[in-house]
Amino acid sequence: MNPLNPSFAEDVARSFAQQPIMSLIGARLSLVEPGVVEIILPYRADLAQQHGYLHAGVVTTISDSACGYAAFTLMPSGSNVLSVEFKVNLLRPAQGVEFVTRAEVIKAGRTLTVVRADVFRIDGNKERTLVATMQGTMIGLHQKA
Amino acid sequence: MNPLNPSFAEDVARSFAQQPIMSLIGARLSLVEPGVVEIILPYRADLAQQHGYLHAGVVTTISDSACGYAAFTLMPSGSNVLSVEFKVNLLRPAQGVEFVTRAEVIKAGRTLTVVRADVFRIDGNKERTLVATMQGTMIGLHQKA
Amino acid sequence: MNPLNPSFAEDVARSFAQQPIMSLIGARLSLVEPGVVEIILPYRADLAQQHGYLHAGVVTTISDSACGYAAFTLMPSGSNVLSVEFKVNLLRPAQGVEFVTRAEVIKAGRTLTVVRADVFRIDGNKERTLVATMQGTMIGLHQKA
Amino acid sequence: MNPLNPSFAEDVARSFAQQPIMSLIGARLSLVEPGVVEIILPYRADLAQQHGYLHAGVVTTISDSACGYAAFTLMPSGSNVLSVEFKVNLLRPAQGVEFVTRAEVIKAGRTLTVVRADVFRIDGNKERTLVATMQGTMIGLHQKA
Repeated sequence: MNPLNPSFAEDVARSFAQQPIMSLIGARLSLVEPGVVEIILPYRADLAQQHGYLHAGVVTTISDSACGYAAFTLMPSGSNVLSVEFKVNLLRPAQGVEFVTRAEVIKAGRTLTVVRADVFRIDGNKERTLVATMQGTMIGLHQKA
Repeated sequence: MNPLNPSFAEDVARSFAQQPIMSLIGARLSLVEPGVVEIILPYRADLAQQHGYLHAGVVTTISDSACGYAAFTLMPSGSNVLSVEFKVNLLRPAQGVEFVTRAEVIKAGRTLTVVRADVFRIDGNKERTLVATMQGTMIGLHQKA
Repeated sequence: MNPLNPSFAEDVARSFAQQPIMSLIGARLSLVEPGVVEIILPYRADLAQQHGYLHAGVVTTISDSACGYAAFTLMPSGSNVLSVEFKVNLLRPAQGVEFVTRAEVIKAGRTLTVVRADVFRIDGNKERTLVATMQGTMIGLHQKA
Repeated sequence: MNPLNPSFAEDVARSFAQQPIMSLIGARLSLVEPGVVEIILPYRADLAQQHGYLHAGVVTTISDSACGYAAFTLMPSGSNVLSVEFKVNLLRPAQGVEFVTRAEVIKAGRTLTVVRADVFRIDGNKERTLVATMQGTMIGLHQKA
């Protein structure tokens, strides 16, 4: 997958820095490649649900941003990306020291891009376990010339 | 839909108060009836994505909790509820003074419960506009006698 | 919801007649209104899965067509409609004399339209029971002038 | 993934032969391994929608069966499997000489199993192109001792 936007990495980093929710929850961008984006989120007790696990909505928040930016890396310069829809299966309790979501583009289209994100918990021994998976659709809104 | 747990409303309120993420984002429980739960979230700039709209993950966070608790209202006393999966369609930009998500049980089963949540933005004139809709599956883990 | 295409009902009927799969399974169009389409499918043993229930894929087949045509009723003349994605929750065994799926547009957009379909089984006493529900996204491909 | 049921392959083949819809559409089981099932469907004009592509519901029908049987391969002897829900993204027109859906278990649980299926069209040169992807949840109903 070849990027149409030569400064895709800088553009993703700039846009990510403009998402206040990412700084509220403490998420950081850890990888940006054509069609692939990873976001890391250290566990914090104030992000949990009633059993102390990361709330499924927080798992979704980082995965939705990762999917949007993965789609964005393959769009022309000046595009805006919005989420159309996503579906998340929660596979295991989101318990861990840290979480990483890895989004990969499955199909990039002129208007719609389909992306998958896998979310892993990382324990004290750096072992990764899949805790959730998202399948979603992103739309690119392109600037008119 | 008749509740099996006579203290469902108190149990939902107690569990909601034990979800630290709800207090981090400023969400509050506004309605708990058999099979129906509403959660209100006032807009805050630190919950936004890069265009200033409420992040789709935050829309999901309140809807997932509302769906889980709507399912819980129809479960036996002492049940725990977990999300199996959900799908969200984002319909309009989540711009507004306040948001409300209303979750309603579609089918309550012995193990699995299917729930739908509609998310509305509320503008300065108290007008409600649908911004997202979730269709999800919750699982009840029941205490053994 | 006001139709942009004054001959939407004839156009839906013509397109439906051009879907060979509908005649293979014995489905018929039973209602076409702006934003709403119903399709009826009598039970047949050769549409079943291993327990004799209507196969979930057949439930999906009629619902996907109903969703596509419901979206189409609100599109400009000469549009083509394609499915982007759909999600189906299976709620009860699809046992019955006849099935009806009712699709309703939730949000019609210029490009994307979100539709929901509820599928009911109809027993010998004409009672309707919800057996599945679909939430999907349709895309309109519009003719250039 | 180790099968709990030593005769899983025979059991899948027997159950598949009991799905009348598979013979109606001309689908055949082409691979059964622990956690993985493939189904092949030759194109037929009577399985198409109005543009001559395989109907999305037919794509779903073979994928849902493949997902159910992939889950079944990892269940104890005597289990029954039912679909809880699935979500399908349609990526490209389903045009081709033949189609194959490949389902793989992502997470096998005691009650619920999450499965993904990728659907490929195969053209005259045997080239495979991804046309759709399904993410779904299956439930195992186990015989009581």
